[in-house]
Amino acid sequence: MPLRDAPNIVMGHGGGGAMSGELIEHLFLPAFGAAADTELGDSAVLPLGDLRLAFSTDSFVVKPLVFPGGSIGDLAVNGTVNDLAMSGARPIALSTAFILEEGTALAEIARIAEAVGTAALAAEVRLVTGDTKVVDTGHGDGIFINTAGIGLVPEGVDIRPQRARPGDMVLVSGEIGLHGIAVLSCREGLEFGTTLCSDTAPLHGLVAAMLATGTDVHVLRDPTRGGMGASLNEIARAASVGVELDELAIPVPVGVRDACGLLGLDPLYVANEGKLVAFVPPADADRVLDAMHAHPLGAHAAIVGHCVAEHPGMVVARTALGGTRVVDLPAGEQLPRIC
Amino acid sequence: MPLRDAPNIVMGHGGGGAMSGELIEHLFLPAFGAAADTELGDSAVLPLGDLRLAFSTDSFVVKPLVFPGGSIGDLAVNGTVNDLAMSGARPIALSTAFILEEGTALAEIARIAEAVGTAALAAEVRLVTGDTKVVDTGHGDGIFINTAGIGLVPEGVDIRPQRARPGDMVLVSGEIGLHGIAVLSCREGLEFGTTLCSDTAPLHGLVAAMLATGTDVHVLRDPTRGGMGASLNEIARAASVGVELDELAIPVPVGVRDACGLLGLDPLYVANEGKLVAFVPPADADRVLDAMHAHPLGAHAAIVGHCVAEHPGMVVARTALGGTRVVDLPAGEQLPRIC
Repeated sequence: MPLRDAPNIVMGHGGGGAMSGELIEHLFLPAFGAAADTELGDSAVLPLGDLRLAFSTDSFVVKPLVFPGGSIGDLAVNGTVNDLAMSGARPIALSTAFILEEGTALAEIARIAEAVGTAALAAEVRLVTGDTKVVDTGHGDGIFINTAGIGLVPEGVDIRPQRARPGDMVLVSGEIGLHGIAVLSCREGLEFGTTLCSDTAPLHGLVAAMLATGTDVHVLRDPTRGGMGASLNEIARAASVGVELDELAIPVPVGVRDACGLLGLDPLYVANEGKLVAFVPPADADRVLDAMHAHPLGAHAAIVGHCVAEHPGMVVARTALGGTRVVDLPAGEQLPRIC
Repeated sequence: MPLRDAPNIVMGHGGGGAMSGELIEHLFLPAFGAAADTELGDSAVLPLGDLRLAFSTDSFVVKPLVFPGGSIGDLAVNGTVNDLAMSGARPIALSTAFILEEGTALAEIARIAEAVGTAALAAEVRLVTGDTKVVDTGHGDGIFINTAGIGLVPEGVDIRPQRARPGDMVLVSGEIGLHGIAVLSCREGLEFGTTLCSDTAPLHGLVAAMLATGTDVHVLRDPTRGGMGASLNEIARAASVGVELDELAIPVPVGVRDACGLLGLDPLYVANEGKLVAFVPPADADRVLDAMHAHPLGAHAAIVGHCVAEHPGMVVARTALGGTRVVDLPAGEQLPRIC
């Protein structure tokens, strides 16, 4: 059922779940034809002389532009830095392209651009080229930002979803669900007792610390749109492996748990902007975990599951009650425009 | 008078003229701070091991999406390919990022994506990575596309605006003004006798043919937003040289001349999407011109002026009547959203 027989784009097509996948598989890839790489993933690794160049892009349309813990400017830098980092690359440079709506206050644009600059310094990437377009009032939404990034993959590093294999341990770098709930609470004017802040952060340093252990890391993924549920399903499908999660091992902050309970959301599907999941050989898992714990962005890292040969392409979770449930690929996104 | 004391973004800020320059100089560069390269130009050239990598980005918000001679899909590929080519680079790969408005017909998106694929094949670049976001109805405009591109600059090639010097001959690769008038005629429902088609085309092959003459090409620029007038002013300012144009030598198609006369536009400020201006040493000008004439995209190439030491930063044109006029940097864009 390609594209679910829908004639038009709906919000779910931008959610990073099954509908996004269908759009790529049944619309973009056939339309692009021979010009497209068959993967068309979050980032590409290109051989260039003796080097391997990582290349990635993301647009950011988050609403509101500023939320607890960050802004669209932070996301625009950290999102692309993290896409590069998930191939093991050291990020080098970013492009920044703004689509501005006529009538947007220059002061607001300046504030967002300052966040871009500050985030780029923190992520150790240069802003080297850019573009600005303006669209008429009512044909944009304040500020959209696209960033593209390039980075270098160190020799010997080969990190991609296809390399997950039975036996691999599955790690997550910290508490999940913060970004999605932070944006939602701000947008809907909801109060959940304490204010939850987005976890937006650049992960290249954490990745470097993990690689410095000498471990042959198989897969890294930052669970943004669609959350851990979407990321783990994509990896399971790409590598034809099963994934078994231990729900009790997954670090979910109380505030996220409460907010999800109230709103009927599953934390596994809520977006993160400063977390990663890693698949590593079992013999190296403790060593990698120690390295993560020693890094500020990995203080709450945990082993949350493992890879199996059974039920390839499927993610299941052992629940707190001792049963199991299927963690399916979400269709769209529970919370649109969170990045 | 930074930013002309305007509190809000207006269409002119996206026009590629003086207002766009002010936005970069007085808002983006100070806001980005130490993270930004001081140039922040249309494309950057980065040393990478023994290689020099060109890196560029552009967003496309043209209205309508399809116009005589092309579509937003063609522009998205050719625009970034041309930014790379203007540093002398051989383009290698593009990213494609779509911002889609909820409710846009999938069939229309597919048609545009097919144009992207066809244009990429023609331009010999791979589509290697991408992103799709969806925004609510009324907060976008059908389809926005961002592309970023990477390419390699051949050894010995050093092409940038700062290298223009007195004595250089100024060449244009063909007839000017076609893209802007084609989009305008289509948008405003105007008829100008014959239909004018956009000149959108990838220029890397023409550039390679020019470089194959062995000439030390000093400057290349594709005069898109703001037209030849904006491009020549930027070069004159960057290199602190004067530019003298011979109006009679500039190839302007009759249809563009007529449409501009009718609408009160100056062809020198109308956008092109498949033309370049080149600054070359005088001794090599004829050789480069011959190479351009031998290429399909340079058949109407002409020498249209030269560089002088006088009036640095200023472009003047000798008119048909034998007088001279100043060709100033346009403020905004005569025709918004033409790319």
